[in-house]
Amino acid sequence: MTATDVERRAQRADVERAAMARALEIAQLGPRGVNPQVGAVVLSPDGEVLSEGWHRGAGTPHAEVDALSRLAPGAARGATAVVTLEPCNHTGRTGPCAVALIEAGVARVVYAVADPGDHSSGGADRLRAAGVEVESGVGAIEATALLDSWLEVQRLGRPHVTVKWAQSLDGRAAADDGTSQWITGPAAREDVHRRRALADAIVVGTGTVLADDPALTARGSDGRLLESQPVPVVVGTRRTPADAALRRHPHEPLFFDGPELRPVLDALRELGIQRVFVEGGPALASAFLREGLVDEVLAYIAPVVLGGGRLALGDIGVGTIADARRLAVTSVERLGDDLLVVARPAASKTEEGEA
Amino acid sequence: MTATDVERRAQRADVERAAMARALEIAQLGPRGVNPQVGAVVLSPDGEVLSEGWHRGAGTPHAEVDALSRLAPGAARGATAVVTLEPCNHTGRTGPCAVALIEAGVARVVYAVADPGDHSSGGADRLRAAGVEVESGVGAIEATALLDSWLEVQRLGRPHVTVKWAQSLDGRAAADDGTSQWITGPAAREDVHRRRALADAIVVGTGTVLADDPALTARGSDGRLLESQPVPVVVGTRRTPADAALRRHPHEPLFFDGPELRPVLDALRELGIQRVFVEGGPALASAFLREGLVDEVLAYIAPVVLGGGRLALGDIGVGTIADARRLAVTSVERLGDDLLVVARPAASKTEEGEA
Ligand SMILES: NC(=O)c1ccc[n+]([C@@H]2O[C@H](COP(=O)([O-])OP(=O)(O)OC[C@H]3O[C@@H](n4cnc5c(N)ncnc54)[C@H](OP(=O)(O)O)[C@@H]3O)[C@@H](O)[C@H]2O)c1
Ligand SMILES: NC(=O)c1ccc[n+]([C@@H]2O[C@H](COP(=O)([O-])OP(=O)(O)OC[C@H]3O[C@@H](n4cnc5c(N)ncnc54)[C@H](OP(=O)(O)O)[C@@H]3O)[C@@H](O)[C@H]2O)c1
Repeated sequence: MTATDVERRAQRADVERAAMARALEIAQLGPRGVNPQVGAVVLSPDGEVLSEGWHRGAGTPHAEVDALSRLAPGAARGATAVVTLEPCNHTGRTGPCAVALIEAGVARVVYAVADPGDHSSGGADRLRAAGVEVESGVGAIEATALLDSWLEVQRLGRPHVTVKWAQSLDGRAAADDGTSQWITGPAAREDVHRRRALADAIVVGTGTVLADDPALTARGSDGRLLESQPVPVVVGTRRTPADAALRRHPHEPLFFDGPELRPVLDALRELGIQRVFVEGGPALASAFLREGLVDEVLAYIAPVVLGGGRLALGDIGVGTIADARRLAVTSVERLGDDLLVVARPAASKTEEGEA
Repeated sequence: MTATDVERRAQRADVERAAMARALEIAQLGPRGVNPQVGAVVLSPDGEVLSEGWHRGAGTPHAEVDALSRLAPGAARGATAVVTLEPCNHTGRTGPCAVALIEAGVARVVYAVADPGDHSSGGADRLRAAGVEVESGVGAIEATALLDSWLEVQRLGRPHVTVKWAQSLDGRAAADDGTSQWITGPAAREDVHRRRALADAIVVGTGTVLADDPALTARGSDGRLLESQPVPVVVGTRRTPADAALRRHPHEPLFFDGPELRPVLDALRELGIQRVFVEGGPALASAFLREGLVDEVLAYIAPVVLGGGRLALGDIGVGTIADARRLAVTSVERLGDDLLVVARPAASKTEEGEA
């Protein structure tokens, strides 16, 4: 490799990094939904931007096809396609992007992160097999951040589920007469609202709707609605009253009969919901745990002891200690007087110990 | 005040501080029991040590009387008595020390900490009224540390009670079939043993004895007995089996019928027990909480969820949220995979909050 070759490559890398930054930017013009947000930039062999494209949601062309479609026939011959996600190798509502790129005569493909889908991965191999030069990893950190929730949905095969509950130190959700507002203090409640805003949907059982008539909005400490609002979802057969507060939510509420929860998650995924925030009550939270559908647990623990029979969790399907649902604690935080324990399910382990 | 006066006072302060250090040292020759550990040193007007004394336990002379008794009649005239605790003003099994000092002709009394007892306090005033010069606060920090448990018993009118339990995040003591060994890990168990060694007695209910056959010893991680061992105490009417592990404890176990807990604490206090460590089970721990006899709570929280009906606490007498037993969290510590929440009872407060 001559000095000029080295120089030329460095120059090309700069140009492609800039194109990737642009691709990441335009990716976000597309909706956050059941499909990933993807952007693409097509560069001429000497690094000029020929066209740009992004994915506008399920059923519409993928980003690279969108970009190619903006070019005159033959204009992409010898070009470089810079894409935030590995071109797919899958015929769905659209044909495989790898094939579209090959057929357009693209000579080089640069992408940020690999496609983890069972059916859609393999695009890079297919491109290489057709003689296309392929490079990956450019802008991977930014692309992963952008695609995180979507990638997680791909890994899990369903939306990511956080189950939140508030409890006394001894695991009660309420005092014996049912009174509970508020076990936890303002800092904990504010934290909940902040996290609600990060979710795409907030799920409650009919028991909670009928008992508490919650608004299910994400609000700031001043009571005002935060910018991003989760879709309210109610699970259960009982009717939500016509004047229920959640019917005044900025998003139309969704209703599912249950008790099967997996179909609820599948339906939410179809609607583009990637992060689900389950806010109870005890029956629904326990059901999510029992069915192994929980990725993150948020236990807000108030420094009170209550005793009595109103438990924050009921039957989660554990009969004996060896089957305990073990958690890996991610963080323990003090929020005002309260504690927040954030944890993820961990592999169950058989206990060792002294007698 | 002339320069010589200032010098003389500084010199006297030095001599008295040294005498207080010595008094604190000999105080510890006495037993740690229902009475405080107290030491006294009698100094001649020119600062020579005339005699020393300490309290050897209930029914024996108090430290200052013990020191005076070692002197020839009249030898204490004009002397200074340096005592770790305010001389008592109380006729119990011995006469008031304040009177003994006055009658011996002591001219000056220096003490470290005030006597907080309802019946025994007032000694300093009595001395002053008889024309004795009184100074307090010398060596107060060291004396308070030495007397801490005893002072706390005086304040509380009963031994200091720590209630410890181990629980899953959701407040269970065991899985539904009763299996629980071990919810918490080795670091948490080691911490429990270290704290057992700091207590004078370890209290369990018969339920725990019959279910777990605990040794109730304080052991190191190598299984060896720690130097200091709490007295094992069992509360309940059911018989502890003749071959129960706790019968092999280095201390003779104590048995109480219950269910009244206050008399148990009073009896323990009479035996010189100042710090009680209640290790359960759920029924007994709940009873201590219900009766407001808890000064410190230690909740060892394992990162598991269990669900089901085996609760770490049962009925603690709270019917409605306004009566919740509020705690002030002293510390939250991670012990291996587990959490330790240390808390003290706090004033119950009515919750403010948004709807
Ligand atoms: N501490 C907390 O964090 C917290 C949070 C929320 C609520 N709460 C309290 O919890 C109480 C309500 O408790 P809850 O347990 O009845 O409420 P819930 O869990 O909100 O509702 C239970 C209902 O959800 C429906 N459901 C659908 N699928 C289910 C499944 N797989 N498993 C179980 N239920 C399913 C059923 O409704 P149908 O019978 O209609 O079919 C069931 O009766 C209220 O007092 C509320 O204040 C506490
Ligand atoms: N998670 C933990 O930290 C922990 C700690 C210890 C034990 N445990 C588990 O707890 C289970 C035993 O539970 P438990 O609740 O039966 O045990 P417990 O609290 O040790 O014993 C209850 C018994 O204590 C006696 N008692 C005396 N005064 C009482 C009062 N004021 N209130 C209530 N009881 C009084 C009664 O005995 P009589 O009926 O004989 O009169 C009562 O039946 C075992 O499975 C053990 O493994 C868990």
